[in-house]
Amino acid sequence: MTSFNPALFATFAPPVMEARRWLADVTFPPERPLINVSQAAPVDPPPEGLRRAIAEAALDLPEAHLYGPVLGNGDLRDAVAGEFSRAYGADLTAGQVAITQGCNQAFCAATATLAGAGDDVILPTPWYFNHKMWLDMQGVNARPLPCQSDMLPDPQQAEALIGPRTRAIVLITPNNPSGAEYPAELLDRFYDLAVRHGIALIIDETYRDFDSRAGAPHHLLARPDWDRTVIQLYSFSKAYRLTGHRVGALLTSVERMAQVEKFLDTVAISTSQLGQIGALWGMRNLRDWLAGERQEILSRRTATVTALRGLDGWTLKSAGAYFAWVEHPFGESSADLAPRLVRDAGVLALPGTMFTPTDDPTGKRHFRLAFANVDRAGIEQLAERLAGFAV
Amino acid sequence: MTSFNPALFATFAPPVMEARRWLADVTFPPERPLINVSQAAPVDPPPEGLRRAIAEAALDLPEAHLYGPVLGNGDLRDAVAGEFSRAYGADLTAGQVAITQGCNQAFCAATATLAGAGDDVILPTPWYFNHKMWLDMQGVNARPLPCQSDMLPDPQQAEALIGPRTRAIVLITPNNPSGAEYPAELLDRFYDLAVRHGIALIIDETYRDFDSRAGAPHHLLARPDWDRTVIQLYSFSKAYRLTGHRVGALLTSVERMAQVEKFLDTVAISTSQLGQIGALWGMRNLRDWLAGERQEILSRRTATVTALRGLDGWTLKSAGAYFAWVEHPFGESSADLAPRLVRDAGVLALPGTMFTPTDDPTGKRHFRLAFANVDRAGIEQLAERLAGFAV
Repeated sequence: MTSFNPALFATFAPPVMEARRWLADVTFPPERPLINVSQAAPVDPPPEGLRRAIAEAALDLPEAHLYGPVLGNGDLRDAVAGEFSRAYGADLTAGQVAITQGCNQAFCAATATLAGAGDDVILPTPWYFNHKMWLDMQGVNARPLPCQSDMLPDPQQAEALIGPRTRAIVLITPNNPSGAEYPAELLDRFYDLAVRHGIALIIDETYRDFDSRAGAPHHLLARPDWDRTVIQLYSFSKAYRLTGHRVGALLTSVERMAQVEKFLDTVAISTSQLGQIGALWGMRNLRDWLAGERQEILSRRTATVTALRGLDGWTLKSAGAYFAWVEHPFGESSADLAPRLVRDAGVLALPGTMFTPTDDPTGKRHFRLAFANVDRAGIEQLAERLAGFAV
Repeated sequence: MTSFNPALFATFAPPVMEARRWLADVTFPPERPLINVSQAAPVDPPPEGLRRAIAEAALDLPEAHLYGPVLGNGDLRDAVAGEFSRAYGADLTAGQVAITQGCNQAFCAATATLAGAGDDVILPTPWYFNHKMWLDMQGVNARPLPCQSDMLPDPQQAEALIGPRTRAIVLITPNNPSGAEYPAELLDRFYDLAVRHGIALIIDETYRDFDSRAGAPHHLLARPDWDRTVIQLYSFSKAYRLTGHRVGALLTSVERMAQVEKFLDTVAISTSQLGQIGALWGMRNLRDWLAGERQEILSRRTATVTALRGLDGWTLKSAGAYFAWVEHPFGESSADLAPRLVRDAGVLALPGTMFTPTDDPTGKRHFRLAFANVDRAGIEQLAERLAGFAV
């Protein structure tokens, strides 16, 4: 029997796949179907125009089936540079943009250029599990930075964690799993901290299209030397419902891009052409549609906040984009409660333990509720079921 | 300025992208267009039926746009298990098959389950550059195993390289870059060697559909405990002209698959749905078409062998699948000759130095010629231009 790489063996199994297994032996009566608030993904396909654009390319555009450039198609890189320049008051070029097979891969590429085995990367907790998993696999130490009670990380606390092998701080805003929208001033403080210590600031804005605030969510890309410090990540999956195509983006300096190119060439060669074609079509044609999607999700957020605030014993810690982070009133761990929530309440939600270090007790007290796919009536249902759930 | 991960910095830039840059300032007269034998990829789109299957799914199948299972769609995993069982006289199950975003990613996933920083993996040389790049990035030592003059690696020589931290031997057959088809008995010997030392044998058969031999190219998958030792890799890109969709496959034990799933969840989440739909349609409908493609490429191989054998001073070392590995008659390094070959002869080929360690002089004396995209008339042209090329 050949052996296993212990670094891979040591990290945990994909949480979303584990959660799916809880559904295996449970049947849900038609009058009380499952309410699935486990996965942060659209459940409907993209609008017809986008589907048609992909279909036409598949039929008539030979290049849609062939390798593209490692860093992505020029037209899409141009469009991203233009859109981010406009949205962030910045002056970006296509050479500062890479297209990746989804935003997870953008994160892997970003950290690969920064940290190797034995280095440290600071992750606010609760963290996004795939970030932690990648660092584990790479032998990089994920240093947890517990968020405050408002679910925001504190730069001063972060500074105390910085050591000689610290290479980066990772911020997700709007946050997965908590939904918290990080104030621009907080990002300014983290930026200053990163510059002072010569480390990178990775900003994952997978959910930026559903931020409740008007205007740029931060001003870092407008700084003259932003790309010496910031690596910005983005996903097309949520905005245009392209999760099955795997298209994300990474913004960094041209110098670091040469290293990103090595990583992507080796792990990906290039990103799906049809996915890139769909993403570009979306950017060019779906601005108004996306604005409507955002309004709908913001109204679901309002409904979620209202419904959960009225719930005896439960405490809503934060909410935004697709997520609410809630504290439950029970003595048991959320890890044990989650499968029972499926059976007894017909609710599938990920326990906080999937987003926290094993020795951090806060995970046991919380759930992540990904409410974006549930309409307002469903959200009221969800709250009722949680209210009726007893241990 | 933030720093770089030295392991990534130390590896080389993507060779195919570098080669493209040699074309930048050269114009090719219409009567003598460029002969591009640099990239191992189809240049035409897939047959219309397959394109139509993708287009219809894009329009009408909602799931084609949504996340799929991390290890790939069940129907495609079933089909691969069935096809490999038939072709290799084996008894495989879907649980032993993973679908990956291309075969490069299958290699990354395979080695990630085996080796971490400081471990060793044995690669016959000339090697496939992306294999070497991935190992470099991971801090894994690639131990070169120079092939014999027939371009086959020697198991006895391999045994001498095995140390306490050796985790795997990687064999590519038909080989990239040399084209050599490894005899089944040679694979048996490597298998016995791997079992004896408790290390893995990774077999990359990206080009298996263009193997000149009838029947199974090896018998390892038919052994009862094959999956304790062998990790088999495959690509749909070449057979069905799907390079732009990124679909590959990995076969291993169910036990190791749990580790593969962690890696793929983190780096990929899932493989492009439309790519998987195209691959499955190809497996179900393009068997005869693929047999014709194979015949055409085999006849180009014959033409290449004939043309190069007649070439004064040049020596053909091996040929198969998409590739010929040839020794040139000049004193200069192939790395210096390659851009001049573009300018003076209108031929783009990758120099052997892209496939060998920097301290290995054999790379300087060789070129890889990826002849699969050049028809017989073009191959004669290619030989003429090489004959006329003087330093």
